[in-house]
Amino acid sequence: MQALVYNGPGQKNVEDRPKPMIQMPTDAVVRITRTTICGTDLHILKGDLATCQPGTVLGHEGVGIIDAVGAGVVSFKPGDRVLISCITACGRCNACRKGMYSHCATGGWILGHRIDGTQAEFVRIPYADTSLYPIPDGADEEALVMLSDILPTGFECGVLNGKVQPGSSVAIVGSGPIGLAALLTAQFYSPAEIIMIDLDDNRLAVGKHFGATSTVNSADGDAAQQVMKLTGGRGVDTAIEAVGIPATFTLCENIVAPGGTIANVGVHGIKVDLHLERLWSHNVTITTRLVDTVSIPMLLKTVQSKRIDAKQLITHRFKFDQILLAYDTFGKAADTKALKVIIEA
Amino acid sequence: MQALVYNGPGQKNVEDRPKPMIQMPTDAVVRITRTTICGTDLHILKGDLATCQPGTVLGHEGVGIIDAVGAGVVSFKPGDRVLISCITACGRCNACRKGMYSHCATGGWILGHRIDGTQAEFVRIPYADTSLYPIPDGADEEALVMLSDILPTGFECGVLNGKVQPGSSVAIVGSGPIGLAALLTAQFYSPAEIIMIDLDDNRLAVGKHFGATSTVNSADGDAAQQVMKLTGGRGVDTAIEAVGIPATFTLCENIVAPGGTIANVGVHGIKVDLHLERLWSHNVTITTRLVDTVSIPMLLKTVQSKRIDAKQLITHRFKFDQILLAYDTFGKAADTKALKVIIEA
Amino acid sequence: MQALVYNGPGQKNVEDRPKPMIQMPTDAVVRITRTTICGTDLHILKGDLATCQPGTVLGHEGVGIIDAVGAGVVSFKPGDRVLISCITACGRCNACRKGMYSHCATGGWILGHRIDGTQAEFVRIPYADTSLYPIPDGADEEALVMLSDILPTGFECGVLNGKVQPGSSVAIVGSGPIGLAALLTAQFYSPAEIIMIDLDDNRLAVGKHFGATSTVNSADGDAAQQVMKLTGGRGVDTAIEAVGIPATFTLCENIVAPGGTIANVGVHGIKVDLHLERLWSHNVTITTRLVDTVSIPMLLKTVQSKRIDAKQLITHRFKFDQILLAYDTFGKAADTKALKVIIEA
Amino acid sequence: MQALVYNGPGQKNVEDRPKPMIQMPTDAVVRITRTTICGTDLHILKGDLATCQPGTVLGHEGVGIIDAVGAGVVSFKPGDRVLISCITACGRCNACRKGMYSHCATGGWILGHRIDGTQAEFVRIPYADTSLYPIPDGADEEALVMLSDILPTGFECGVLNGKVQPGSSVAIVGSGPIGLAALLTAQFYSPAEIIMIDLDDNRLAVGKHFGATSTVNSADGDAAQQVMKLTGGRGVDTAIEAVGIPATFTLCENIVAPGGTIANVGVHGIKVDLHLERLWSHNVTITTRLVDTVSIPMLLKTVQSKRIDAKQLITHRFKFDQILLAYDTFGKAADTKALKVIIEA
Repeated sequence: MQALVYNGPGQKNVEDRPKPMIQMPTDAVVRITRTTICGTDLHILKGDLATCQPGTVLGHEGVGIIDAVGAGVVSFKPGDRVLISCITACGRCNACRKGMYSHCATGGWILGHRIDGTQAEFVRIPYADTSLYPIPDGADEEALVMLSDILPTGFECGVLNGKVQPGSSVAIVGSGPIGLAALLTAQFYSPAEIIMIDLDDNRLAVGKHFGATSTVNSADGDAAQQVMKLTGGRGVDTAIEAVGIPATFTLCENIVAPGGTIANVGVHGIKVDLHLERLWSHNVTITTRLVDTVSIPMLLKTVQSKRIDAKQLITHRFKFDQILLAYDTFGKAADTKALKVIIEA
Repeated sequence: MQALVYNGPGQKNVEDRPKPMIQMPTDAVVRITRTTICGTDLHILKGDLATCQPGTVLGHEGVGIIDAVGAGVVSFKPGDRVLISCITACGRCNACRKGMYSHCATGGWILGHRIDGTQAEFVRIPYADTSLYPIPDGADEEALVMLSDILPTGFECGVLNGKVQPGSSVAIVGSGPIGLAALLTAQFYSPAEIIMIDLDDNRLAVGKHFGATSTVNSADGDAAQQVMKLTGGRGVDTAIEAVGIPATFTLCENIVAPGGTIANVGVHGIKVDLHLERLWSHNVTITTRLVDTVSIPMLLKTVQSKRIDAKQLITHRFKFDQILLAYDTFGKAADTKALKVIIEA
Repeated sequence: MQALVYNGPGQKNVEDRPKPMIQMPTDAVVRITRTTICGTDLHILKGDLATCQPGTVLGHEGVGIIDAVGAGVVSFKPGDRVLISCITACGRCNACRKGMYSHCATGGWILGHRIDGTQAEFVRIPYADTSLYPIPDGADEEALVMLSDILPTGFECGVLNGKVQPGSSVAIVGSGPIGLAALLTAQFYSPAEIIMIDLDDNRLAVGKHFGATSTVNSADGDAAQQVMKLTGGRGVDTAIEAVGIPATFTLCENIVAPGGTIANVGVHGIKVDLHLERLWSHNVTITTRLVDTVSIPMLLKTVQSKRIDAKQLITHRFKFDQILLAYDTFGKAADTKALKVIIEA
Repeated sequence: MQALVYNGPGQKNVEDRPKPMIQMPTDAVVRITRTTICGTDLHILKGDLATCQPGTVLGHEGVGIIDAVGAGVVSFKPGDRVLISCITACGRCNACRKGMYSHCATGGWILGHRIDGTQAEFVRIPYADTSLYPIPDGADEEALVMLSDILPTGFECGVLNGKVQPGSSVAIVGSGPIGLAALLTAQFYSPAEIIMIDLDDNRLAVGKHFGATSTVNSADGDAAQQVMKLTGGRGVDTAIEAVGIPATFTLCENIVAPGGTIANVGVHGIKVDLHLERLWSHNVTITTRLVDTVSIPMLLKTVQSKRIDAKQLITHRFKFDQILLAYDTFGKAADTKALKVIIEA
């Protein structure tokens, strides 16, 4: 089969690889019908993740059709249409029993990272019963690709951890795909204010279109002052960090109100300064989280009931044989205005 | 009346001061029967708190008897015995309505800080209805002095914020009065393990006596490894920071398990490093809090029902005319083994 | 001043009464600019509430302008525009400190019940600091009358107690003003399904217009079957009882899914059957609540940010000298299609 | 193998039955080393549960050693010592993902009810990975038999649902094994008062010994008045119903304080009266629950760390060939003072 393979920093190729087989009785093999590219795939390609070995098929998102199941799989059979979680969950270990699938003792984020992923014709999914979700009849499968990773990440790490509430004030630092996913799902809770912060006016315009009540371009360096002004000097109840660098985390520290929450979503490469000399008495909460995807069943209901339009995030569509072009388009998002790209089989 | 007055960095005196009077209809004047000294008083004396003006009577803890009340006070009358909260709460502002008394718009921690405090014969208490608590008949008033600040602080900032649960594992970094207050109140929730960490073997022995399941002397620099060993490599569900310096906060970062919580109690003078390059994916929560003292009514019930022995924290007793000696004893805790000292009228 | 007085079962009159005066230092006197009529006022007039003495001025909702304040009132001064909570809260007692204002030791629902109410030119409000709310500049005061009672009741007793969540399923039994208030505020949480149930097709049509995803006319006696069919046999996560009779409570018992919640809002005159022989193993929660109005500040924000259109509930408007006509219109709601009527000074 | 078989109302026999075999890849077969008898087994024998067919091996509690596992079992292998949950959980369905194992789509309470149970030499356990728990080295296996059902039931249905808190007041109606299990586990949360209510003075004495702060014999018919007196007229924050008849549920309604919770644990055969004409405004919560056993891992930690002495519940011990005598002893608890009886292989 054809697959997009990471061959070391800066190197990716479409290669012919053997079709994956059932290795454990709890495995399934899924024929991919649609996948996408994540910012994390770009990180791997830059060589930022030493845990990803050259030779790995990339990709941890997608939908498809069950091709084969192991003897221990009870929920799925060949031909079933399924949504793939980016997180593999055994469903049995202590972490899984607490709903913290991201820290599953033998799973977690392994797809397209420690084992071959979804940017291929077929993929092997361990613990299929608890790592795949049935696709309801009549569902728009393209929209569901957004439920593999990006929407659960924005929702769980940003919105749920951030305790967004009716009438509350929210700032989202970073208006890229993940910040926008937080923006879309924050609206489940009807906050009074959602302030979108970014350096890129185009992305801010998208944020406004997606429901932000105001936007702040942080290029001028006075983003904190602007947020304080917008909130009558109080700061925000929830600050969602969706970038992953020290400057944006510091901005969150500067705009969170006493009693508020900083929900970190960004993937950080270096440490940040935590100003406890000021915050020790501010009754703030700071959270981190690798998405658990426990919210997929709930998100499926909101998509099916049209409470959220997940497809808004999709800007470009490609066939699998155009996957290198898809990477190119996604990689140059500032120019192409790409958010999420769909790659169809 | 006699009062202990802060006269600038390094200077304190017992002075004769006019008895405070009702200034607002919501005020009460309380005759102090017992007060104590807090680590924060020592900070003020070192000159660490610019917000405390020379000339201020120190002290924010104590019990006493109502001497006078303003026209707007409905819950108390002269002669009533009362417990004084270290936090003054108007009960009306947005922060107070949310139970975040520490951020009361016109109150918060003002006693012995921005207005004259309790280390005197009399003290004026603003918003008396919501800043004083009636003392039940037959209560041990000495024990109740521990409810003005130290026990609510250990409980609210450490135990509640730290989400201590039955069967969970807890590490408390710092076995001074505040760490021991966290230790005593953590046991309300029956954690399986409570590991006490300090540099001082005497304080660790006290921790063991107060209910710690194990102790770690951090002088050797391998405290994190020892905690990981004690927890089978998992780390702790709750790490309570009860010191207030970068090294102890970093220790907490190194021992908190995925899904766990770092509850900061310590008063920090400088920033700390937050290792998001590692923790971003660990599903951890970090909390800060200035005590709100909302737990005083609950703590009163636990003291009255003997679920907790608050007096264990009291090591020394003085008369008010010995208050300079009391400061000396409390200030040299490493030698005197003082935890909390009682100063009686 | 003119006031609408309850003079015993079936008897109400507009009478001339002395203007109320400050009695306690915590009182305010408010000049009413707008008030409304509640279903509970009709109950009093029927003689259902023995706790309401003949001679009482009715009404517990409204907005107005501060006319006078007692010495102990610190948050308001004459001329301030205020929203009146239907619940009087001392802010000091154990119940108030827990946010359960409805059970305030010396307050609770007393306005227009145990003391004179708001259907008059002036009203005395005890504990003004904690029972009144400032009206923001530029707010639509008519809309805010809905925040005195009906919206907090639908929200707190129905939606919050019912734990409505994104993607969840909700049934509201009773599409009168209170059921519709629950319907409007349930949408703060983006449930996937909201099924409105009533006997009156007009009210169901209003429900549909206000956001219900489906409606069931319960006249045929098969409402439970219809709800089970709409939910694929699962039943609803939240059943909100907004009528107050045994039949509607039983309907809730028949449609709540395992793990779900029945949130009672209705005022019941007689006991109901609780089918524990079936429900003991269904992991259900049943809640009751007299509104606490703790959500007024939050609701104010959602009204100000246009997350909710509170004025949708207002169907008729009268001047105070037409108040008897207003009662007539509200009392014959099946004919007049009245929901909430506004009475303007 | 030998097994205790239900042969229709009033009839039980020790019979020779074929050893169970693996039927599904997710099954395990366990050799029972210790089991016990539950009050529910007596209900089945009375013919109260039509869902239990004659011919069924009884028993849903126990510990044992893995004898065989299906191809899909990944957590256990022959020879492993395991604790059997009374609830079978697939770990995959919607209910299981929410932690509501009791309503597992294909599991739930099936052992010794819909399929053969644990009162035998061997038992087949479906979904072994998520229905069995590893026994830590050195654990007291007899104590762990209390974790199959009785302690999780008292804890989850009574204590957790009842929201027992430090300093709160609790009444437990029924001082039999299940009420005593609630009593033992309520103490995890350090309530100020635990009032035990029963008709049997011996069981009340046991309650006192197990930690109740007071006891009330309800034979005189004034139990409600006694509880109100003990609580200063306030009633209790938590009333745990551990009997299952209308009179005891009504007692809970009469003693629950405003804002409090009635946590039903009892198995009811007929409906009860819910006095909403009084309770509609009392802000109470009523919960029901079939145990989910999600608390087993936590309870294991509390047993291992000696926070609870689970063995206190064991009054009698028998060998398997004495199982009919064990039933006799357990069935005549009023005379034999039996709480839980252990049946050893």
